Amino acid sequence: MTVAKIGIVTVSDRASRGEYEDLSGHAIIDTLNDYLTSEWEPVYQVIPDEQDLIESTLKDMVDNELCSLVVTTGGTGPAKRDVTPEATEAVCDRMMPGFGELMRQESLKFVPTAILSRQTAGLRGSSLIVNLPGKPKSIRECLDAVFPAIPYCIDLMDGPFLKCDDSVIKPFRPKTK
Amino acid sequence: MTVAKIGIVTVSDRASRGEYEDLSGHAIIDTLNDYLTSEWEPVYQVIPDEQDLIESTLKDMVDNELCSLVVTTGGTGPAKRDVTPEATEAVCDRMMPGFGELMRQESLKFVPTAILSRQTAGLRGSSLIVNLPGKPKSIRECLDAVFPAIPYCIDLMDGPFLKCDDSVIKPFRPKTK
Amino acid sequence: MTVAKIGIVTVSDRASRGEYEDLSGHAIIDTLNDYLTSEWEPVYQVIPDEQDLIESTLKDMVDNELCSLVVTTGGTGPAKRDVTPEATEAVCDRMMPGFGELMRQESLKFVPTAILSRQTAGLRGSSLIVNLPGKPKSIRECLDAVFPAIPYCIDLMDGPFLKCDDSVIKPFRPKTK
Repeated sequence: MTVAKIGIVTVSDRASRGEYEDLSGHAIIDTLNDYLTSEWEPVYQVIPDEQDLIESTLKDMVDNELCSLVVTTGGTGPAKRDVTPEATEAVCDRMMPGFGELMRQESLKFVPTAILSRQTAGLRGSSLIVNLPGKPKSIRECLDAVFPAIPYCIDLMDGPFLKCDDSVIKPFRPKTK
Repeated sequence: MTVAKIGIVTVSDRASRGEYEDLSGHAIIDTLNDYLTSEWEPVYQVIPDEQDLIESTLKDMVDNELCSLVVTTGGTGPAKRDVTPEATEAVCDRMMPGFGELMRQESLKFVPTAILSRQTAGLRGSSLIVNLPGKPKSIRECLDAVFPAIPYCIDLMDGPFLKCDDSVIKPFRPKTK
Repeated sequence: MTVAKIGIVTVSDRASRGEYEDLSGHAIIDTLNDYLTSEWEPVYQVIPDEQDLIESTLKDMVDNELCSLVVTTGGTGPAKRDVTPEATEAVCDRMMPGFGELMRQESLKFVPTAILSRQTAGLRGSSLIVNLPGKPKSIRECLDAVFPAIPYCIDLMDGPFLKCDDSVIKPFRPKTK
């Protein structure tokens, strides 16, 4: 059985300079550990909000590290340095608008500023790249909303079969294609 | 009274090779027959998941066949061969993001994998092109959601006046422009 | 305290020719007067549905007039002359898909033709540009939906601090960044 490689990219000027601990990246790893019962291996990077560097990191994780899923956190707001969605779109061949729509809709239940989140998702070759917001407490909220669709998405691209702890998260796989 | 020409494009490698019957294309024709009381004429094609071919088929239906509406089915998922939204965007001058948003939202009531649907809609000249999902049973669901807006959209582009059976579907036309 | 400059751009062939009064532009000004208790100054233009002209007007309001917020009305539908979203996208560096999504979702509560609204929002430098629909009565509806997120958006871009009348509209500013 293939071990699934999953990229986790924290995009943050301050975390990359060591000015604070990367709580969001760790929240992603913790959440995936909670969800997944099949073997997986994180490929983890903390980088500043530089579009070129975000693009090259995403490309490396997909093309060289062969991650079937890459999750980013940070850089999705309207501040001048926030360019994660632009970097994501630049490296993807095909976009997946439904992820951003659902995450914004979920966050709108909590805060009206959810519409400021510019997060997106897309496909590069046979890999899925998903932007999450930067705030640690929003990570679980957003992953709980979109993760049920991710294992089947990776199946459709002939990636590794992700098994989940059904008492934590229920991935959905339609019976017929 | 002008007969409305409506394009129906089934995008499927297997249906185009005759490996199975095109249930989705027929579901679209059946649904439109249920909806419409004014005269209409289908222009129907089954083609493989090739972006160039999807683009040239859409162009032909709009530019030569003069379809005021073209509905596609298939090729909107994350599988490698799924490129219908990319072909649609390539031939449209202006996009209509509300169609995809609403269809995903409707499908989310049934399956969490609705966010994997990348379907979009757009305008080429004075014609509306709308992507539907590939599964026959989702066709009616999605058309029921978006069709009420379509006759007025075509009015706004000076296309043929579509009359519907109000007991089946209620098109909405605002009183004032 | 800096006086906030807010651009209001009415895009309408007929209003620009003086064929009717610009009710929508005035509805925006009235609504902002209702909302804001801090000083603000409108920069107001009525222009025809010409993409070049819309683009140059938006650029002028951001780059020369230094508006931190520009609100447009009109030109977001499917009619041939409706090109406001295209002009907006052309002058923005980064897009804000959440605004259009939320406005369409709100309008869907009233009319199924809400999905025909192609309105978007985006950032040009440190300014936010938001498209509103053209109909005067939809202006308040849409602003009520999205405005609560706008003051914080402008804070994040180091713009002027907008103070609101809390009995009319409640802007949301998260406690922590």
